[in-house]
Amino acid sequence: MAHEPGAPLRVALLGCGVVGSAVARMLVEQADDLAARAGARLEIVGIAVRRPQRPRPDVPVDPALFTADAEELVTRADVVIEVIGGIDPARALILRAMEHGASVVSANKALLAEDGPTLYDTAARYGVDLYYEAAVAGAIPILRPIQESLAGDHVRKVMGIVNGTTNFVLDAMDVSGAGFAETVAQAQALGYAEADPTADIEGFDAAAKAAILASLAFHTRVSAADVHREGITEVTAADIRAARENDCVVKLLAICERVTADGTDAVSVRVHPAMVPRSHPLASVREAFNAVFVESAAAGELMFYGRGAGGDPTASAVLGDVVAVARHRVAGGRGPGESAYADLPVVDMGQAVTRYHISLDVADRPGVLAQVAAAFADHGVSIETVRQQAVAGEGERAKLIVVTHRASDAALSATVSALGSLDAVDDVASVMRVEGA
Amino acid sequence: MAHEPGAPLRVALLGCGVVGSAVARMLVEQADDLAARAGARLEIVGIAVRRPQRPRPDVPVDPALFTADAEELVTRADVVIEVIGGIDPARALILRAMEHGASVVSANKALLAEDGPTLYDTAARYGVDLYYEAAVAGAIPILRPIQESLAGDHVRKVMGIVNGTTNFVLDAMDVSGAGFAETVAQAQALGYAEADPTADIEGFDAAAKAAILASLAFHTRVSAADVHREGITEVTAADIRAARENDCVVKLLAICERVTADGTDAVSVRVHPAMVPRSHPLASVREAFNAVFVESAAAGELMFYGRGAGGDPTASAVLGDVVAVARHRVAGGRGPGESAYADLPVVDMGQAVTRYHISLDVADRPGVLAQVAAAFADHGVSIETVRQQAVAGEGERAKLIVVTHRASDAALSATVSALGSLDAVDDVASVMRVEGA
Repeated sequence: MAHEPGAPLRVALLGCGVVGSAVARMLVEQADDLAARAGARLEIVGIAVRRPQRPRPDVPVDPALFTADAEELVTRADVVIEVIGGIDPARALILRAMEHGASVVSANKALLAEDGPTLYDTAARYGVDLYYEAAVAGAIPILRPIQESLAGDHVRKVMGIVNGTTNFVLDAMDVSGAGFAETVAQAQALGYAEADPTADIEGFDAAAKAAILASLAFHTRVSAADVHREGITEVTAADIRAARENDCVVKLLAICERVTADGTDAVSVRVHPAMVPRSHPLASVREAFNAVFVESAAAGELMFYGRGAGGDPTASAVLGDVVAVARHRVAGGRGPGESAYADLPVVDMGQAVTRYHISLDVADRPGVLAQVAAAFADHGVSIETVRQQAVAGEGERAKLIVVTHRASDAALSATVSALGSLDAVDDVASVMRVEGA
Repeated sequence: MAHEPGAPLRVALLGCGVVGSAVARMLVEQADDLAARAGARLEIVGIAVRRPQRPRPDVPVDPALFTADAEELVTRADVVIEVIGGIDPARALILRAMEHGASVVSANKALLAEDGPTLYDTAARYGVDLYYEAAVAGAIPILRPIQESLAGDHVRKVMGIVNGTTNFVLDAMDVSGAGFAETVAQAQALGYAEADPTADIEGFDAAAKAAILASLAFHTRVSAADVHREGITEVTAADIRAARENDCVVKLLAICERVTADGTDAVSVRVHPAMVPRSHPLASVREAFNAVFVESAAAGELMFYGRGAGGDPTASAVLGDVVAVARHRVAGGRGPGESAYADLPVVDMGQAVTRYHISLDVADRPGVLAQVAAAFADHGVSIETVRQQAVAGEGERAKLIVVTHRASDAALSATVSALGSLDAVDDVASVMRVEGA
């Protein structure tokens, strides 16, 4: 649709929660700046909410703009901002908006990770933009840098702390030495964890973001279903202590990695807790902050750091996208669409390769180390260091701490099974991956 | 110029030094990826160098592509990559390229900071792109995030470690305790400082980058001449020790800040060494790495970290821009041009406001602290902390370490003059600004 010079662009907002109300407020308060940057005034033509009559004193717009009829609203906008979240009705509304010629800005990681290709295809068919910087790592510009700034480079690995709740919990456990359940309760009391924290602590949120990051970094369609996912519910105070003794911190990482599997290029996409050396830039990401670490062939190591959630930070990312798509409406053209030309296979977790930190409770007698070492060797897992600690007050028991060289997850799993069946091994107390070394 | 579907884009490269040869190599080696991402093949049609006959075995192109006639070359390209550096002949070649309809990608911070508006105006007149991500902080995507990702936000302050040489020197001084001259010599031996390190250690390089960052962050024309500049040549081992005692590190910062001066909005743009608390994300930027810290109204605190120089990292940034401008050639349209609508005044350094760390050598007798405190109060500078240290072996001498609240540079300068004329003050041993607290 050609834009008439001087005419305002019609903006429809779907959702008016924490993010939506911040977006509406900034659209109003910064109207002059946004107009100068976008090349046209951005006029809110409607805000779709479930209860339009509810007073919203923090949203400085004409109350008549609130409507329950989102389906109608999206047909009369140039730019539709979707901050409802979830799969339905967000998907249908976005598709309908694009079919009616609107460009779409969304913060909806779940939808993008579940059904991105349908959205991309529709955007391409109708010649409109689909932008979603806010879907990953909140305020941190990360999708645009990966998609555009690194378009001339070869991304090898993306490792992100992309969920603020889990980082808050793990950081608090590191600082206090407290256990998982206790710390989650504390995070809930402070507003850093939701009443039902499942999506965060089980890694679903991070997995959706990993799928989006991997898709952009590797020019390959990756959906949430392709992502191996482990949350932080099994992380114990003992794990955190073990990490500390290893000069590491425990972080929940979203990892997207280019790998070679069976001689061909492929990608590994996974979310799991991992030990990260304290000297690594990701280790210093505290509290609920997010950060994404990128390794690429030419640029080397990059890190992007900031707030991953919250109304204003997320609104900043949304409005950056709104200005971009508005510019395109004014000037003609669209931004980069989906790029999935590389079409790399996603490997199973068994083929993912990393290092491991394993704590074993063992009998303190000659020959035990040899048996343990043999179990690793039998499965082709090479040991980097072994440390033995006597257990205070238990003369006959010891702890063996093994850090391996890089090995496949399948080989490591088989090793752990074998260790568990050794007479001399009382318990495989902890197994954790080591990243960023 | 309309792009014919399927036709390659003609790329001309000006300069084939460390960065240029990396660009040429990546254009060849990654040709298929670049074509898929840009929407057209990128074909090198010529490389302008001073000595075209010189063998260049590391540049995998037909030797016939080398030419000494840059003026002719730029007339037959769709995209011109300028990595010559310096003002002339780079400026004339870029202008000529744009007049002939080419989009330009440049890594030339000096030229952008000296004469950006002429380049922008020419790009706008001829409807072409002018991109220069590589001009600031090498491989780190920072210009695009500020210009595009934060387009819906209100940037308050940008603080960057944007010169790798000076960061290497200051970091080495912090680690070793050695003096400035000795450390520069060491940096030269290791290849981190040039034979003539003036542009780096006197802050000229950082000042050019500060001008570019401020222009984009504040939608205002800022040139290198507007930037207050102090290098690191006066930083002593004693300053570094003082910073350490204050739990700080010394960094050369490029600071772009929105301020209020005489009741109106303005900007302060400056380059100088400053103490930064060790807890601040910028403090952990070691060796020759760069990082840019951004504070904005909605997004809050962001940091971008990576390699600021080197052939491959810089080439990564150049090629990201090449893909962007190539996409625009293929699809029609151009990226965002200059945005200088805010047109804010740049304040004198005297009006810049920050905190200060001052070390005084004083007589150790009653009443001295009162005199010193009065000198601060007389000039309206409020003291945050004072610490007195006896000087070992000199019973009558002491060191006073004062950290102030925020004060203007003019007020602080006047205070320092007044302190210098007090009988009880032997020496104002060190004055350093404190940022990031």
